[in-house]
Amino acid sequence: MTLHTPNGFRIAGTHCGLKPDERKDIALLVSDHPCVTAGVFTTNKMKAAPVLYDMDILAQPDAAIRAVLANTGSANACTGDPGLVNARQSAKHVADRIGCTPDNVLTLSTGVIGLPLNMDAMKRGIITLADQLSQQTDPAAGWQEAATAIMTTDTRPKIASVQGKGYTITGITKGAGMIAPNMATMLAIIATDAAIPHSALTHALRQATAQSFNRIVVDGDMSTNDTVLLLANGAAGGRTLTGSAEVAAFTAALTEVCVALAQAIVRDGEGATKFVTLQVAGATDTASARQIAQAIATSALVKTAFYGADPNWGRILAAAGYSGVDVDPARVALWLLDAQNQPAIHLVESGTPLDYDEPAAIALMQTDEWGFRLDLGLGPAEVEVWTCDLSHEYVTINGHYRT
Amino acid sequence: MTLHTPNGFRIAGTHCGLKPDERKDIALLVSDHPCVTAGVFTTNKMKAAPVLYDMDILAQPDAAIRAVLANTGSANACTGDPGLVNARQSAKHVADRIGCTPDNVLTLSTGVIGLPLNMDAMKRGIITLADQLSQQTDPAAGWQEAATAIMTTDTRPKIASVQGKGYTITGITKGAGMIAPNMATMLAIIATDAAIPHSALTHALRQATAQSFNRIVVDGDMSTNDTVLLLANGAAGGRTLTGSAEVAAFTAALTEVCVALAQAIVRDGEGATKFVTLQVAGATDTASARQIAQAIATSALVKTAFYGADPNWGRILAAAGYSGVDVDPARVALWLLDAQNQPAIHLVESGTPLDYDEPAAIALMQTDEWGFRLDLGLGPAEVEVWTCDLSHEYVTINGHYRT
Repeated sequence: MTLHTPNGFRIAGTHCGLKPDERKDIALLVSDHPCVTAGVFTTNKMKAAPVLYDMDILAQPDAAIRAVLANTGSANACTGDPGLVNARQSAKHVADRIGCTPDNVLTLSTGVIGLPLNMDAMKRGIITLADQLSQQTDPAAGWQEAATAIMTTDTRPKIASVQGKGYTITGITKGAGMIAPNMATMLAIIATDAAIPHSALTHALRQATAQSFNRIVVDGDMSTNDTVLLLANGAAGGRTLTGSAEVAAFTAALTEVCVALAQAIVRDGEGATKFVTLQVAGATDTASARQIAQAIATSALVKTAFYGADPNWGRILAAAGYSGVDVDPARVALWLLDAQNQPAIHLVESGTPLDYDEPAAIALMQTDEWGFRLDLGLGPAEVEVWTCDLSHEYVTINGHYRT
Repeated sequence: MTLHTPNGFRIAGTHCGLKPDERKDIALLVSDHPCVTAGVFTTNKMKAAPVLYDMDILAQPDAAIRAVLANTGSANACTGDPGLVNARQSAKHVADRIGCTPDNVLTLSTGVIGLPLNMDAMKRGIITLADQLSQQTDPAAGWQEAATAIMTTDTRPKIASVQGKGYTITGITKGAGMIAPNMATMLAIIATDAAIPHSALTHALRQATAQSFNRIVVDGDMSTNDTVLLLANGAAGGRTLTGSAEVAAFTAALTEVCVALAQAIVRDGEGATKFVTLQVAGATDTASARQIAQAIATSALVKTAFYGADPNWGRILAAAGYSGVDVDPARVALWLLDAQNQPAIHLVESGTPLDYDEPAAIALMQTDEWGFRLDLGLGPAEVEVWTCDLSHEYVTINGHYRT
C-alpha cells in the first residue's frame, strides 16, 4: 500500500535512551503552519500527565498546534505534580527548538506507569529530532520512523493513509495490549493538509473514533494515556471544507484511516493469533448490544477458547448472560462467521443447540480470521467489535513486561 | 483437619460415564429426614436447566428436600426445553430409588455448556449411587468421594466442616475457573443436622455467601450454573435454633465453612500460582469499593503481573481508574501486603509514587500468598476480595478444556 503524506508536516523518530535497548523511543511531528486540532482522550480517572496537559491546551478556543511530541518507556502516569511539570517542560524544549510557545505543543507518553520521565534523555531526543526534521527529504520515511518510535509491545509499526478530494490524511498508531472499547491503551497521531473548521474536525474525529478505535478489544483494560490527536494544517491549499457533503466525505476518509489503524492494533494484539469479529444483533438498543459485545470480548474463557480454536459457544452465551443486559435465553441465535463475516455455521437457534459440523467449525477457527454473530431476537440494534484471542504469549509478555 | 459429618445424611460419588475417562462424575446426597433448604443461585440470565428447576422447587413454601444430585461432564445449560425435561427426569430417577417425589430432589450440573445430559449414564449413576448409599458405613469417606465426583478442572477435592453447639455443618464445593464475585462457576452443597427455621437458614446462607463465595475472583466470568445449597435436617436432635444469639452463632459457623470452601476455590484456581488478597479502603460506599476491587481482580494486565511477581502497581491504579467509580488520583495510597495482610511495602502516597525496595517487593510477590491494599482516601467503606494470578497454565487449560 502506497503511503501518502500530507503537505506541510515533517515527522521523525529516534532513540534517546528511554528504552533500555537501542530501539527508537521518541517521535516528533511538526507542522509548518499552526493546526486546527481535535483530540479524543481516555475516560480513565487516573489520567496521565500528558493527557491532562493536552486536554488543557485543546480546551482553549484559539489553540493553534505546531507540534506533537510522543515518547515511549514511561507513561508519565501516576506521577503526581512532578509528572505535570515534566510534560510542560518537554513541550517547552520542543517549542524552544522549533520556535513557538509551549501552548503550541502537545505531548503523548506511553510505557510503564509510575516511572518518572527521564528528562535528560527527553531533551537529548528533542534536540536530535529537531535536527533530523530540518534535514528531512523523504516524508514517507519520517512517518515510518515515527510509527516505529511509538511502539511498545507492538511487533510492527502501524501506518495508514487516504487521499481525499484535494487533501491527504495520514496516521500512525501504537497499541498492542490494554485495548478496550471507549479508547484503549493506544496513541494515534493523525495529520491532514485539509483546511477544515474546528467544529467540523472535532465532529469528524468523534464519528471516526466511534467506528474504529472504540470498537476494538484486546484485553479489556483501559489505559491512563489513551489519546487520538488529529491535526489539520490546510497546507494542501484547497478551500476550507464547510459544506455538509464535503465534511461527510472528509469524515468517511478519516474513518477509513482510523479503521485501518484500529484493526492493525487488534491484529498485532499482545500474543494475538486470531482476528475475531463479534456481531451482536437483535438488541433493544445500541448501548446494550455494546455491553454484551464487551462482556464477550473481555471474557478470559471466551478468549482462550478462541485461542484453542474450540467452538465452545456456551462460553459466549454465558458471557452475554452475565453482561448485565436482560436477554431472553429462548430467543438467542448464534453463528460462526467466515473471514468475510458471512454466516458459515449455525450453532444455536431459539436458545437450543443445533447439530453442527464440529470439525468444520474447528477448521475455520484454526484460520487467522473469523467471527461470531449473536442475535438476541429482541430488537433492531446491532454492533460489531473486533477482538483477538488470549494466548500463552500474552501471559509471557505481560508477566514480564518491565524486564 | 478432622472432617466432622452431620447426622442423618448419606453421600456418595461414582463414575457413570459422563466424563470420558474413569474419574468420578456423579454424586448424591440423601437425608433420612426432609430438610429445610436454602439456595443461592447465579444471576446470569442464561440460567442452566438445573438452576431453573431448583429455583422453582425452593420457591414452594413447603419445600422439603430429601436429596441433591450433582453431575459433571455437562452443565445442562443452553439446552432449551429438553434440558429442563432432563433435569426433571434425573430428579425422578433419584426419587424412585430413595422413595420420595421429584419435588423432594434438587439437581446440580457442571461441565460443558450446550451439551445435552447423557441420560443413560445419569440413570446408571443414580442406580449405583443408591446402592452405595444403602451400604455406606464411613460417612467421611462418602463426603470425600462426592467432593471428588463434582470436580471439573479442580485439581483436588474441597471439603470443610465446623462443629457448632450441638450440631455439625459440612460442605463440599467445586470451582476452579470462571469465578467472580456475585456467585461464580461453582457448586457448593452444605449440610447440617441443626434444626433451624427456613427464614433463619436463608438469612444465614445469604450472610455467609456475601462473606465468602461472593468475595472470590478467578477470571471474572460468571457461570450459568452457580449454586450454593444448604440443607438442614435437624437430625442432631437439639432444639430448633430460634434465638437471635443462636442464629448468629449458626451464621458464624456457616460463614467459617463457606470461607474455607471459597478460599480453597481460589487456591485451586485454574493455573493459579498465587493467592492474592485485595483490600479496597477509603471508598465512599461498599458498592464502589467492590466495583474497584472487581476491576482490579479481573484485569488481565494486573493478573499477569501477579503471575510474573512484578510490582507493576500502575496497572492496579489504572484498573481503579477505569472501574467506573469516581476516584481522586491525588488521594490514593497503595501498599503491598504480606501473607498476614499486614502492610509490608508502601508504594504510593497521595497519588505520588514512593521510593520503595523493589527487590523486596519482588521477593514477597514470588511467595505464594500476599496482597495489595488500595486506599482511595474518600470515605469509610472497605471491602476485601480474594483472587489469583493469570498464568500460562490457565491458557492451556481453557484453550483446550473440552479435548
